[in-house]
Parts: sequence; C-alpha cells; structure tokens
Amino acid sequence: MEKENLSVVLHSQGDLRLEQRPIPEPGPNEVLLQMHSVGICGSDVHYWQNGRIGDFVVKKPMVLGHEAAGRVVKVGSAVKNLKEGDRVAVEPGVPREMDEFFKSGNYNLSPTIFFCATPPDDGNLCRFYKHSANFCYKLPDNVTYEEGALIEPLSVGIHACRRAGVTLGSSVLICGAGPIGLVCLLVAKAMGASQVVISDLSADRLVMAKELGADFPLTVKREDGPEELAKRVEGMLEAQPHITIECTGVESSVQTAIYVTSCVYLLSYNSTVHVFVSSYSSWPMAIAMLASKKVNVAPLVTHRFPLEQAVQAFETTRQGQGVKIMLKCDKTDQNP
Amino acid sequence: MEKENLSVVLHSQGDLRLEQRPIPEPGPNEVLLQMHSVGICGSDVHYWQNGRIGDFVVKKPMVLGHEAAGRVVKVGSAVKNLKEGDRVAVEPGVPREMDEFFKSGNYNLSPTIFFCATPPDDGNLCRFYKHSANFCYKLPDNVTYEEGALIEPLSVGIHACRRAGVTLGSSVLICGAGPIGLVCLLVAKAMGASQVVISDLSADRLVMAKELGADFPLTVKREDGPEELAKRVEGMLEAQPHITIECTGVESSVQTAIYVTSCVYLLSYNSTVHVFVSSYSSWPMAIAMLASKKVNVAPLVTHRFPLEQAVQAFETTRQGQGVKIMLKCDKTDQNP
Amino acid sequence: MEKENLSVVLHSQGDLRLEQRPIPEPGPNEVLLQMHSVGICGSDVHYWQNGRIGDFVVKKPMVLGHEAAGRVVKVGSAVKNLKEGDRVAVEPGVPREMDEFFKSGNYNLSPTIFFCATPPDDGNLCRFYKHSANFCYKLPDNVTYEEGALIEPLSVGIHACRRAGVTLGSSVLICGAGPIGLVCLLVAKAMGASQVVISDLSADRLVMAKELGADFPLTVKREDGPEELAKRVEGMLEAQPHITIECTGVESSVQTAIYVTSCVYLLSYNSTVHVFVSSYSSWPMAIAMLASKKVNVAPLVTHRFPLEQAVQAFETTRQGQGVKIMLKCDKTDQNP
Amino acid sequence: MEKENLSVVLHSQGDLRLEQRPIPEPGPNEVLLQMHSVGICGSDVHYWQNGRIGDFVVKKPMVLGHEAAGRVVKVGSAVKNLKEGDRVAVEPGVPREMDEFFKSGNYNLSPTIFFCATPPDDGNLCRFYKHSANFCYKLPDNVTYEEGALIEPLSVGIHACRRAGVTLGSSVLICGAGPIGLVCLLVAKAMGASQVVISDLSADRLVMAKELGADFPLTVKREDGPEELAKRVEGMLEAQPHITIECTGVESSVQTAIYVTSCVYLLSYNSTVHVFVSSYSSWPMAIAMLASKKVNVAPLVTHRFPLEQAVQAFETTRQGQGVKIMLKCDKTDQNP
Repeated sequence: MEKENLSVVLHSQGDLRLEQRPIPEPGPNEVLLQMHSVGICGSDVHYWQNGRIGDFVVKKPMVLGHEAAGRVVKVGSAVKNLKEGDRVAVEPGVPREMDEFFKSGNYNLSPTIFFCATPPDDGNLCRFYKHSANFCYKLPDNVTYEEGALIEPLSVGIHACRRAGVTLGSSVLICGAGPIGLVCLLVAKAMGASQVVISDLSADRLVMAKELGADFPLTVKREDGPEELAKRVEGMLEAQPHITIECTGVESSVQTAIYVTSCVYLLSYNSTVHVFVSSYSSWPMAIAMLASKKVNVAPLVTHRFPLEQAVQAFETTRQGQGVKIMLKCDKTDQNP
Repeated sequence: MEKENLSVVLHSQGDLRLEQRPIPEPGPNEVLLQMHSVGICGSDVHYWQNGRIGDFVVKKPMVLGHEAAGRVVKVGSAVKNLKEGDRVAVEPGVPREMDEFFKSGNYNLSPTIFFCATPPDDGNLCRFYKHSANFCYKLPDNVTYEEGALIEPLSVGIHACRRAGVTLGSSVLICGAGPIGLVCLLVAKAMGASQVVISDLSADRLVMAKELGADFPLTVKREDGPEELAKRVEGMLEAQPHITIECTGVESSVQTAIYVTSCVYLLSYNSTVHVFVSSYSSWPMAIAMLASKKVNVAPLVTHRFPLEQAVQAFETTRQGQGVKIMLKCDKTDQNP
Repeated sequence: MEKENLSVVLHSQGDLRLEQRPIPEPGPNEVLLQMHSVGICGSDVHYWQNGRIGDFVVKKPMVLGHEAAGRVVKVGSAVKNLKEGDRVAVEPGVPREMDEFFKSGNYNLSPTIFFCATPPDDGNLCRFYKHSANFCYKLPDNVTYEEGALIEPLSVGIHACRRAGVTLGSSVLICGAGPIGLVCLLVAKAMGASQVVISDLSADRLVMAKELGADFPLTVKREDGPEELAKRVEGMLEAQPHITIECTGVESSVQTAIYVTSCVYLLSYNSTVHVFVSSYSSWPMAIAMLASKKVNVAPLVTHRFPLEQAVQAFETTRQGQGVKIMLKCDKTDQNP
Repeated sequence: MEKENLSVVLHSQGDLRLEQRPIPEPGPNEVLLQMHSVGICGSDVHYWQNGRIGDFVVKKPMVLGHEAAGRVVKVGSAVKNLKEGDRVAVEPGVPREMDEFFKSGNYNLSPTIFFCATPPDDGNLCRFYKHSANFCYKLPDNVTYEEGALIEPLSVGIHACRRAGVTLGSSVLICGAGPIGLVCLLVAKAMGASQVVISDLSADRLVMAKELGADFPLTVKREDGPEELAKRVEGMLEAQPHITIECTGVESSVQTAIYVTSCVYLLSYNSTVHVFVSSYSSWPMAIAMLASKKVNVAPLVTHRFPLEQAVQAFETTRQGQGVKIMLKCDKTDQNP
C-alpha cells in the first residue's frame, strides 16, 4: 500500500492547504477506504470562507469533505458486512451513543455525533480515510462512485420531499436550482409530483433543471419583487403551488415562497443546522433509487478536478460555476 | 313576522352604517333565518378600514358578517333537510357551479362562489337573512348559537392543523393567540400534539391560551428579534418545534417562524386569500367536535354587543380588545 | 346526424341484447356524445351473469357500460366548458344533490347519485349518449380515446394507492393482475414504490405485469396455502411488504394478504361497493398522468371488438381472456 | 442488599416454576433494578402453554415477563443517564448491533436483538434484574410503576394507530377489548378519532371500554356471522368505519374486519411477530402521554398478585379473567 495521503486541510478561515497526513489504521469495527470521488458541498466552502457555521468553529486544522465514495482496502477485525475491494458510499455522520435520537432513527441529530468535516471532526477529502463499517454502504454494480458520492445530497432531497408531503399530483415550487434544488426536483418527480416550477438566477442551471424534468423553469433577477414572482408562479401553474421547498436561504426568495403558498419547507435558511438536515434513514432508499434508475443524478456533476487541484476546485465552487464539482481522489482511476 | 331588518352595512372605506333593509324572500332551495349570533372577523374590520382586501373592493354597500348562527323561520318549497325552528350554523360560501373545485371538495376555491361579506356578496350581520338550505348545518341540542357562529373559525383551525400535519406527539409553535391562533391550539391538542408554544404580544390573550391548554405561553415584545425568539422557543421545547403555524401575518413573526423550524404553515400572511383558506369539508367535523365536547370554543367569546351597538363592537375589535366579539342579533334572546 | 343508436342492453339476468334505441336529446347542461371506445368492466359481466350486485337489481332493461370516451356532437344551451368536436372521457357518476357527500368531495358516495350502468341508470355502451357536461373531461391531444376510457379504472388505482399510503420506497404486494391490479401497479410505481410483488393465477397476465414494471411476478396455484404464499412473498422482498392491496376478492388471496402484512387495503372483497370505490376527485389527476406519460395504460387493452360483436366481447371477458376488452362504438373510426 | 432473587421461570411447555436465581451484577453500561410491577402478557401465557411462539422455542429455562418497571439499585461505571433510586420503565428489546434496522429507527426488528422473555433471553419477572441503562426510561413523578409497566402495551397501541392512519374525525372499529384493544381505543381517542366501535365477547370488558371512552361497545357472540356483524357496525356508525384495527387474531373477527372496511390493520393475526410489533420510538411519546394525563391506562389493571403467587396469576390470565394482571415484585411496596 502507498504511504502518501494527500489531504485537503482547512487550517483556519481562508487558509486551505493540500498536505500529507498519515494513513490511518482502522479499528476493529472500521474499514480503511481509498477515496475515489468526493463532492464539494456549500458547507465546505462556507467553512473555508468564514471559518465557522453557527456554533461550529474551526479551531484546529480539519480535513474537509463529506460527500464521498471509495473502495475498501483494509478491514477491521470485527467487521462482517464488508470485504476488501468493496465499493462503498460513506455516510458522514456516525453516532457515538445509543441516545434517544439514535433510538428514534434520528441519530443525525445526536449532539455527540461524529460528523465528517464538522469541527473538530475530519472529513474525507483525501487519499485514505477510515470509517465505521456500519456507516459504509456497499454500492450496487450499476451505481458509479460519483453517484455514490451524491447519495448524501440525494438523501437531503428525499428527506425534504417526504417531510413536505410531496405526493402524486402535487404541484411544487422549488426555489433554487443548485445541487439541493435539483435533487429535490428529481425526488419530487419520482414521488409523482405533476408540476414543478424551479427558480434560479442562472439560466444555465435552469437548462439542466429542464432536462432533469422540471415543468416550468423560472428565471429570476435580483431586483424581482416577491409579489411579482409569486404572480408569475401562479400564472405558470394556473393556481398556487401546493408546496414550496426553499433551497436558497436568500431573503427575497424566502419572501416569494411565503407569498405564493401557505405550506413552506425551508431547507437552508437557518444555516446552523444545514449539514444535519438529512435523515440518514433515507440512505438505503437513495441507493435503491439509484440502482433501479428511478433517479438520474449523474448529470449534476459538471466539473471534475484531480485531488491535487483541490484549491482550484474550491475556487470554482465559490464562484458558483456549474452545479456539483467533484474531486477525484484516486490517481489511477479518474472515471465517474 | 317582523318587518324590521336592521343590518350592518359598509358603504365604503370607513363608512359603516346601521340601516334597515327589506326582509328577503327565500327561494325554493333556501331558508330564511332569524340571525342570533354573528362574530366579527378580522376581515370585516379590514374591509371597514381599507375598503378592500386584495382584489376584492367594496364598490357598493355591502352587509358585513360571515361567522353566523340563527334560527330557521321560513323554508323554501324544495327544502328537505330543514324545518322551521331548526337552529343552524351558516356556512358562508355557496358554490354557484359544479366546477372542478367543487368536484374535488374545494368549492371554497371556486372563482364564482357566493361568499358572505365578500364584495359584492352581502353577509349576515342583520336580523333576517336567507341562505341556501344545503349550506345551513343543524346544530345539535348541546351546541349553542355562539358555538355555531364559531364553527367558521374552528374549521380554519381544523384545515390548518391537518394540512400542516399535526399528529400524536407533535410539538407545535403557534404564532398569535387571537381567535385563529386559539382554535389552532384547541385543534392541535385534540389531534394529540404533546407540546404547544403559543406567542402573542398580549399577556391577557396568553392567559386564555394557557387555560385552553397551551403548554408554553410566550410573551413577545415588538422589539424582540427573530433569532432571539427562536432561541426562546427552542429553550422551552428543548428542541425545535416540528411544525410552526403562523397566524399573525406580521413580518417579524414570520421571520421567527422561519428561524425556528423548517416546516412552516402560514395562515394569514397573504391576506388576499385569507377568508377562503378554510376547507369547508371540515364543517361536519367541527360540529362533531363541538357536540362531543372534544373542543371548548365558548371561552373565546370575551365581549357581546346587541346588534344596535355594532359600530361600538367594531371599534372594540379594531382596538384589539378581547378575543372574539359577538353581535347578538335577536332582540328577544341575547344568550350564548 | 345518424338515426341509428345501437345499444348493448341487459334485459334481465343472462339476457343481453343488441338493440336500437332513440338518440337522446341533451338538456341545457348536457352534451350529446358519439361514443368511441367503451371498456367492459367486471361489474358489467357480473350484472349480466347474476342480474344484480348486492342491493342493485336489474328490474328493467338497462344499457351497460361505464368506462367510456367519445366525441361531443351536440351541446346544450347552457354549456360553457365544451364545444362540438371535443374529445372527452365520461365520468360515470353524476350527483343529483349538493349533499354532504358532494360537499366533502365524495359525491361518488351520494345515495342519490346517477351512475352509468347501475340499476336503474343506463350506461354508455351504445352509439350515442347524453351526459352532464360538467362530468365530461376534455382529453388532451396526446391522450387517445381508449386511454380516456381507461381513466375510470385508473382513478380506482389512484384512490387505492393513496388511501393505502403508498409512498417513496414502499414495498407493495398486489394480489391480482387483472385491470385493477395492473393500474394499482402503474400508480404505485408512479408514486415511488421501490418493490412491487404482483400475484395471479395467469402466467400471461404476469408477463404483462412484468412489462409494466412489476419487480416480482408471483404465479400462484389454486391449491397454494396462504402461509406458503406469504413465505414466498417475504422471500422475494427479504421482508414483509409494507402494504398489501387485495384486488381479487378471492378468499384464499385475502388470507395470504392477511398473513403477509399488517396493513391490508381491500379493493374488491365487498362487491356491493365495488363500482363506487373510486374517488372521482382523482379524474383530473388521472388525465394529467396520462398527458405527461407518467403512466402508460395502453398495453392493458388486449382485445377490441366492434360494437356489433358486443355479445362475443362479453363472452371473452367472462372467460377471463386477456386483460381489458374494448368495444369500438364508432363505425368510422376503430382506432385506439 | 438482599440475596434473594425469586424468579418466575418457564422450564419447558407447561412447566412454570418459582425459584431462586443469583442477583446479577450490572456491566459498565447497565443498571441493576429492583423490580416493582410486571404485567403478564398474552405471549407469556402462550410460551407457558405451548412452549413456543413460531420459531422461538423454549429449549432451556427462561425467566418470563417483559412489561416491567422498577427502581435502580446499582449503577454501572459508565452510566450517565441514571442514578440509584431512579424509578424506571424497562424497554424489553435491546439491540446488539448498529445494523440497518437500528439505523432506521426499527431496532425492534433487528434479528440479533436481545428481547426479554423471548427464547433464549430472560425476562424480568423476578426481584432483581439488570438491563442496559440506555433502555431504561426514568418515570416522571406523577407516573406510577404500574403505568410504567403498561408503557410496553401502550407503545403497541401508539404504533398501530399511527400506522393505520387514525386522525382527527376518524371512525374506527377495534376488534377485541383486551389490553391491546383498550390501549388502541385510548390512543385513537387521543389522536382525535370521533367515533370508536369496540367489539368483544365479554360484556365486562365492554363496560370498561365504555368507561375509557368507546362510543359504541359491541357485544358479539361466537355464532355471529361476519356479514351480520359488519351490518351492526355500519348501523352504529351510519357508515363504514374508515379504519379497522384487528386485535383478536380470531378468524371470524378478521372476517368481520374485512367485510366492514377496506382499510384493515391487523395487530395479532400472525402471532410469530406479535411481541415485536411495537415501534420503540414510541416509548418517549408514551411517557409524555402518561405524564400529561392525555391517556389514563391505570384502569386496565384489574388484578394484582404478589410475585410469590405468580402461578395463580398466570392461571387467572389464562382463563381470560379481567384485563391486565400485574405481579408485584417488591415485597415492601405493593402499591400501584
């Protein structure tokens, strides 16, 4: 095995570095993974730019990355569900206690949870990473590593659409056509939504939304008023939408959501809780949806960078280019 | 029968008059009612003060009032479900066409609906009023006229709590302890909500909320910031509420709702649709809840005025005094 | 216009005749339709073979047929929503009163409803038929007449899947791969069900079920015991199904349903209510699903007969051949 | 501390003994409990009479009992949530692995779970018992030990009513007025069910059902046919019930359930899974309902026996006397 473990480390606000770290040794219930594909999330960029999200403050160097897939290269002594060579997606949150949250299926809310790339816990934007075997999901043969890395955002979309009550025949307004808005679109359609309006500032993102099944792409401008936007949405649907899912966190977009419908689901307004909103019981469902081709997340990946160019990849994400930007961590295999 | 039909008529913005109108003659499918108790709704006051709600503009004199109960005094030739002497609650919206809205159980959304006290349709704040017999609901013996007049707001609460998904064990934040907030509280509790926080500027209203079953009354001040309020709510519940039902329409309250929970149901922000939000399929359920004493709406009535003092009653409502102000239209019976 | 109005008339148990009837004259709110395609339903065959379904007894000659689509050839004076030449699907139940059922969106349950081919009301298996214009649904250009005729069973499937709570990731056992079982399959998949087992005695029907998206076709034999079948279902799913939808009404199948899952939705056991189970608020949704190609019901039609061969078509249905048998009522256009 | 640990041990089918066992020593994450009140469940009696439930076979002596509450008398070194003297209810299932079932909040379904009084795992019908501290729930001061012991069946009722979709205004038929039927009644009412019919062979049980809030007690006889019973239920409700919850497992009762409604939830037909149906995420909710007095389970306890008379208590249960029979395990405190 190699000795090199290039890692993307955030030292403090604005100080992002590529550096070598030791290859970790998996414990009895852990596996060592050779990382293959890791997506950059808005929260990664937010830590880089601000050094914190709410009460989570970067106080010591932390490896970024939590949307990840890789290959098992070493197996802890007590692991039964995985073997060397298995391709897996990494669920980033691992509970440390069997507390009430865990027992009710919401261990993602457990206050003592380990969570990749949330201070002080390291993420997996690196060559080699160890993780609890029970929180690595074997990928079916027809699911790529990149699709595996997209399970994390996909599970957020599943959680949001279920919680908001999307069902057969629902009309839905989705504010924002970034990665989260687009997975919400895919999931809403898979749940039978009959009409989806999706709004964004970027015409490019709306082209993709249209290709992914949006019925009505809605280009907005910064100066558009919420009341006017609400009227345009109602005009498209010939009625108010049943449900609005707000994915931008932008004040004026939230206002539009409020004007246009009485039932609003807010995914990103309160950035403190942002990375934890997904209910991880949706992971097995996300994998089943990918395996059965019920959703196609592959087009979300618009840019790929080798791990060595991580800083450039982060800069591209910060500028809002493309949709999902993927870092390729395996030097010998840069395929999807 | 008497000839006198004293009516509360809004001539134009700010011009509210008590005047005599002819007693109407019921058609074959209608009944003539001697009105007993009619509650004043925020929308009545809004028409009085502003002359309009959204696109509904008072262009000619209109009788106000749509939360009403009375006694059948004359029965149309084709009416089968009612007879003279029956005590009834009046459902204010009567569809004129069997359109798609009607067929799907949402005739309240039908664009051609007749709706009491919505321009140009007259309401029932008067001595005598005729109405479609199919839209008058016979009151059980153990339900008072005033409870009958409160069915309209109660049905709004039923609709909101169902749509927002309140269920056994839900924790709910209700913004506003006015009549709508309080019926939402009663209904949420009847649906099994385990913890209800209810907020208001008025300490008096919160005393009533507490008596009606609120777990955590939350007094707010105009200067309180949304983030701070959100923290106080989370402190009370030791968690975020599952659901927020926003009943004030006040910007800062909506902001709090958004900060504190990801699932927001907005009852009154968009005042255009305000009076139509109730799903009238909830009327039979509202009556059943009252008959079985599952909810007790009687305490909501804090003030009573004889019909002759309607202007004073409206002024009291405008000042925000009390909770529900009831006009007593039957000179011979001013009981609840 | 033609004078001929060939009709399929059931005179009494076992006595099915083809005979001429007068062409009806539409009333002010009605349209006259030239019928195009009418499917044969199990209830049509049941009336023919037994002369009754529960309390509904054929006491005088009755035209059969209630799964129908046709073309508007004459328009009543008060009709606004349709014009000559419009292609429409016919909703078979038309309420006669604005009663409680109607008001709650369940007019299909109204005891005074008119219902095609339910004694004593005539159906539409004929050349010309008049119907309430408000209960004729204009077909989008990309929806065929036969798809229009299949909206009635499709709406039954929509109602069943919603009521049974099918959602994203549900595993579902559907007992029976006849027309109703197959539309349940299509709708369950459109609502996001991840795994559907569908059982039938007929291997042919299961081939179609597989083509329509069933994950696990399950061939059963009359002698199979419920416990054994339950084990086979659990073996396929590696768990109990979340939901079972029973569409056969056969005792042993109901037993299997009960063995294998704790949540059973029974579509046809109680044959008395059979033809009324559909919630007709699902019609607009059914049309939207067809127009957007979310479901493909066209393959359900396995046999077509010209109206003149109606008796042969009924005999074919009685023998259980094929899936849906369609009568083609327009001599000049026998296309789908 | 005492040395004596009298225990109710099932040696093999029919061979129930009272015998002394050693007092166990709690591990680091465990607590030692002095048992106070333990209810006898149908499954305890079933093991006694049949030596097995499905694939679970009593092959070596096993302590019975899994509906239990007691007092902490010793605390493991790593326990943080409990201290000596705490009064607790005992959740009988403790997962051994963080498998998929656990992660999705359904650890009760985990195949490797420890479960009290399910072979080969010992129950807690004894003086002293050790248990995982994370699966002991501290009782609020206003909740008695016996109420604590009833949380297990109460959580079954919560799970059933939620899964069956009981909501405000539901009409519900509950088949069986034993402990499970009665907790379903209490929970259905707490969720807003407007009309509950509950059936039983025993007039005594129906008297209690009436006192606990049943709207329509229905006395059935063994010879009553399902169709006739279905008609009586429809007569009581003036309609079919929305939902039927079947708690008897008796063939004729299941038949009635099927005749009378299209949506059936079966709690006990398949006895193999019986003891595991409860979703233990409902434990905190059950405790909250007891603490807030939303349900009153105390009347369910009709008989009490000191632990020394366990055989007599089992015999009383087997004969179907009373409703819930409670064993009092603490010699110094036999209060509820």
